[in-house]
Amino acid sequence: MILPNFVEIVEVGPRDGLQNEAVMVSTEGKIALIKALTLAGMKRFEATSFVSPKWIPQLADAAEVIAGLPSDPNVTYGSLIPNERGYERAKVAGLPEVVLVMSATEGHSRANLNRTVNEALAAIPALVKRGRADGIHVRVSISTVFGCPFDGVPTTERVHWIVEHVIAAGIDEITLCDTIGVANPRQVFETFTRVRSAFPNHKIGAHFHDTRGLALANVIAALDAGIRTFDTSIGGLGGCPYAPGAAGNVSTEDVVHMLDAMGIETGIDLGQLMNAADLVAQLVEHPVRASINRSLLQWKCPVLEPFQT
Amino acid sequence: MILPNFVEIVEVGPRDGLQNEAVMVSTEGKIALIKALTLAGMKRFEATSFVSPKWIPQLADAAEVIAGLPSDPNVTYGSLIPNERGYERAKVAGLPEVVLVMSATEGHSRANLNRTVNEALAAIPALVKRGRADGIHVRVSISTVFGCPFDGVPTTERVHWIVEHVIAAGIDEITLCDTIGVANPRQVFETFTRVRSAFPNHKIGAHFHDTRGLALANVIAALDAGIRTFDTSIGGLGGCPYAPGAAGNVSTEDVVHMLDAMGIETGIDLGQLMNAADLVAQLVEHPVRASINRSLLQWKCPVLEPFQT
Repeated sequence: MILPNFVEIVEVGPRDGLQNEAVMVSTEGKIALIKALTLAGMKRFEATSFVSPKWIPQLADAAEVIAGLPSDPNVTYGSLIPNERGYERAKVAGLPEVVLVMSATEGHSRANLNRTVNEALAAIPALVKRGRADGIHVRVSISTVFGCPFDGVPTTERVHWIVEHVIAAGIDEITLCDTIGVANPRQVFETFTRVRSAFPNHKIGAHFHDTRGLALANVIAALDAGIRTFDTSIGGLGGCPYAPGAAGNVSTEDVVHMLDAMGIETGIDLGQLMNAADLVAQLVEHPVRASINRSLLQWKCPVLEPFQT
Repeated sequence: MILPNFVEIVEVGPRDGLQNEAVMVSTEGKIALIKALTLAGMKRFEATSFVSPKWIPQLADAAEVIAGLPSDPNVTYGSLIPNERGYERAKVAGLPEVVLVMSATEGHSRANLNRTVNEALAAIPALVKRGRADGIHVRVSISTVFGCPFDGVPTTERVHWIVEHVIAAGIDEITLCDTIGVANPRQVFETFTRVRSAFPNHKIGAHFHDTRGLALANVIAALDAGIRTFDTSIGGLGGCPYAPGAAGNVSTEDVVHMLDAMGIETGIDLGQLMNAADLVAQLVEHPVRASINRSLLQWKCPVLEPFQT
């Protein structure tokens, strides 16, 4: 297990989290949440999603949220986009980064994007070209890499094939997502090891949900496979409409706490992050479900010190 | 990450779990729980603890519990013991295995056992000798290896020194315990890697609590360091009187589910294990807190199939 000094966290709560909430959080609330996370040291966001408000009314105010964020040269606000129309809106909003979503499985691709995987792949080169012309970084997130509620578990060969084609289309950063929270640590280790050894010069990120309590174990397996960028969600917000009892994304607090304890820098202050978690619980009007919490952090016994040999 | 085909689970719920419960579970209830776990395929238990009923009244019926268990040549019922007096009672009860508990730190050793670490080490050879004469296997569990509420985090040098002396005293199997649930995966990997490389011919087990949500991540780190025996507790029972909000042991269901998903055999049937978890919730009169549950297992979509490449 070779561990890094630094891990990059991409906060996806304002997008993947809020889109799954029953409550419609106000534009001001969303902006306040992103500001609170920035205060904690968060440097990269999926701040919203430029999708049709018909499908995700919770994020209908995407342009207003982006317009209300303070400009900061050290912070990158990105947005999920499903297609070229989303790209257009993100460009108008002035975003420096977009996250194009596609699926590893046909069933999810059809349900989520109403296109086949081949159609999704075919759309990438035009976006890459536009991104280069506009100075907008295009990242690709691949859903259902570790399991799909329609098609089951894609083979690692299939995942490899898709990643290969995404890279051939001109993408330099790809996130492999456990959309419904069914990945296991062996699968995570094997999938990322294979992809990283095949494409050592491309940036590969990981995105886990905690449906079955394995998210932190999967983070360890991905770290062990050399992954250094993780999507996380404040308060563990997020969910999956296809899994009864399914939980949200791995929580930002839990990942930052674990990495802190392991002596791995994230640039994020855990105490300030707890303030953002308190805020998000207010905004969504229910408690959040991270494992780490303020009472545990305030337990001031010597074992709270970082591990020293 | 080199993974094994088989991992041994030692069920400690009837001991580490029930000793922390407010409810006094009846002798019949304890026997029924162990039988339910045996039905699920559990082969090795810390079935009770031969300690003074003054300190742990919940387990005052240790001898009656052992007397009520069916004899099965494939199942090993062990008991925690703190000292030679506990050994004597375990021997009278006819147990084939005892787990001698000691601490990695002076503060915990004094609080828990009212002796120094050196005094605890000095007591081992006589027990080893008696065990050999009586045909009773003596395992040693070392508490607070990863953190102590009194003394902080012991260095890996100190842990190594203690393990060395335990082995020199004639012990062939040692469990390193995160008694209060503060271990992190780097620390777990480094500690077990060091101990295993120093003592490759001795059996080393791991025992984690889930206070901060890191228990399954720590299991992965320990697996990665070559550990093949884990203490777990049905329903995640257990706790720590020193940590407000502290949680119990890593739950047997969660570990078996994770290993199942990874294609690692335990000999334990997850469905039957859920029956034992239902029973334990009835016995302790509150819900249990595993991450995996029956509704998630009953979610019959294709992703429930074991991972196939």
